[in-house]
Amino acid sequence: MYRLTVEYDAPADVAAFETRYTDEHVALVQQIPGLARFTLSHPKGGDGTPYLVAELWWDDEAAFKASAGTPERAATAEHAQGCGATYRTFHGEVDDRL
Amino acid sequence: MYRLTVEYDAPADVAAFETRYTDEHVALVQQIPGLARFTLSHPKGGDGTPYLVAELWWDDEAAFKASAGTPERAATAEHAQGCGATYRTFHGEVDDRL
Repeated sequence: MYRLTVEYDAPADVAAFETRYTDEHVALVQQIPGLARFTLSHPKGGDGTPYLVAELWWDDEAAFKASAGTPERAATAEHAQGCGATYRTFHGEVDDRL
Repeated sequence: MYRLTVEYDAPADVAAFETRYTDEHVALVQQIPGLARFTLSHPKGGDGTPYLVAELWWDDEAAFKASAGTPERAATAEHAQGCGATYRTFHGEVDDRL
């Protein structure tokens, strides 16, 4: 599958971030055309561990690219910028080795 | 599922890293007890994009913890340190939202 990863740094106001993310952002992501899967994780670890890892999955790169120009993708990206946490994104094919 | 993420920064010697990772490290990971899935991705993106994302998946946190003290986990972690790239690890439950 092809995945877009969004790694959020710790927000200054965790409660405000969680409210906005849970109550508003999740629904926007779920409306993105062609999305096959959407996963969330609040991981534990040492330095450099993201606060939240959001992953958007498509069947393949063509489906990812087809969604890139849609109003839903644009609205979701714009909304993310107002969640009160810095973040980085990267994307690529994910290959099973086991 | 419960996931251990390993994000490798760009190695100084990409060819040497890939040879060691592909020819040696992958087989060590595959031998870790209880491992349910193992995925690799070389993503694209802006600043902060890892060179390689390796993800080790277990059915649940108990299975992850059970593997933590095994010789295979120790050998794999030690081998990673000789691959010629800095890396960070974090772990946590991954929840489906779509």
